[in-house]
Amino acid sequence: MLRQLEKLCDALRCLPGVGPKSAQRMAFHLLETQDRAAQLAAVIEQSLALIQACEKCRNYCENHYCTWCEDPDRDPQQLCIVETPLDVNGIEETGLYRGHYFVLRGLLSPLSGKGPQELGLDGLATRLHRAPPQEIILAISSTVEADATAYYIAEMVETAGAKVKVSRIASGIPLDGDLSWVSARTLTHAFSHRESFDGH
Amino acid sequence: MLRQLEKLCDALRCLPGVGPKSAQRMAFHLLETQDRAAQLAAVIEQSLALIQACEKCRNYCENHYCTWCEDPDRDPQQLCIVETPLDVNGIEETGLYRGHYFVLRGLLSPLSGKGPQELGLDGLATRLHRAPPQEIILAISSTVEADATAYYIAEMVETAGAKVKVSRIASGIPLDGDLSWVSARTLTHAFSHRESFDGH
Repeated sequence: MLRQLEKLCDALRCLPGVGPKSAQRMAFHLLETQDRAAQLAAVIEQSLALIQACEKCRNYCENHYCTWCEDPDRDPQQLCIVETPLDVNGIEETGLYRGHYFVLRGLLSPLSGKGPQELGLDGLATRLHRAPPQEIILAISSTVEADATAYYIAEMVETAGAKVKVSRIASGIPLDGDLSWVSARTLTHAFSHRESFDGH
Repeated sequence: MLRQLEKLCDALRCLPGVGPKSAQRMAFHLLETQDRAAQLAAVIEQSLALIQACEKCRNYCENHYCTWCEDPDRDPQQLCIVETPLDVNGIEETGLYRGHYFVLRGLLSPLSGKGPQELGLDGLATRLHRAPPQEIILAISSTVEADATAYYIAEMVETAGAKVKVSRIASGIPLDGDLSWVSARTLTHAFSHRESFDGH
């Protein structure tokens, strides 16, 4: 293959879920649709230049603060902590949450150089000190790194001395999932956290 | 969602096989990996600027002629006509073909403005007149447009008066496919083109 074409395939593999075969298909497709390919490159560059982190919650925004931090109708007494901006979108799609967010943009992982500062936890501590919410909802997964992050935040809240209720969203079997697709770890958790059920 | 983020999702949907959900995942991922995203944009622009069409066969190249047209070890007596540069890659992977190529970069489709000129067939006619190969292999699919293109080329060869054997690659059941996955059209073709089989 052409060296430049190989370079294009390699670059496309930075996209999630794109293996060597789909990267190749995408590369050839981009070369056949030059206008749209040029537009894609331009929009990526534009997005990197325009989209910043909200100064309050680290979510994506175009102008200092994000849509949710600027919305006066959102309840400042609830603060939902998530790992990525994509998680905010997922939660917003459910339509059930009307509070504020804080986006970690990662999880504690000393080995890959992600400490409390990289997750903006110093900023969160200041925020908790100045205007503590009534409840913090940890909406993060249950991997080892997520657990460590959750404990760190819970401890941070306790140290701050603020009277904040900290909760974590439930783990278990997805409602629309098949038991056979669920990991042994999830199943173990679901068993040991089983709830009484009276069938009514 | 942010307007710029929506723009990015829309632009990513130009990639083959990328629906709204994967475009969203890709957009958020690009924003989290800014260096690689900037590199992707740069490589797309670079590729559009550097990669051209081979002056002889319309395949991709960086410098007037493609690898295959410039290779003196390839047999000029065989000319394989394909629809896309990706098809050349597929055929090269089999390792069985050692001739030259001609890449149509499309199929005849008057409704979408693709006539003989758009497929470079005038250039092919000149080439057949100047240095006719012994065999032309039509390695194109069997859709209505592909059939029309195949007939057009066969007629063109006949009109040119050159003594060229024209063949078309076999259609039928894929060797590693399941019969139930094959379309009724393919199955009909496979039945009516069945070959005698003596089991040895």
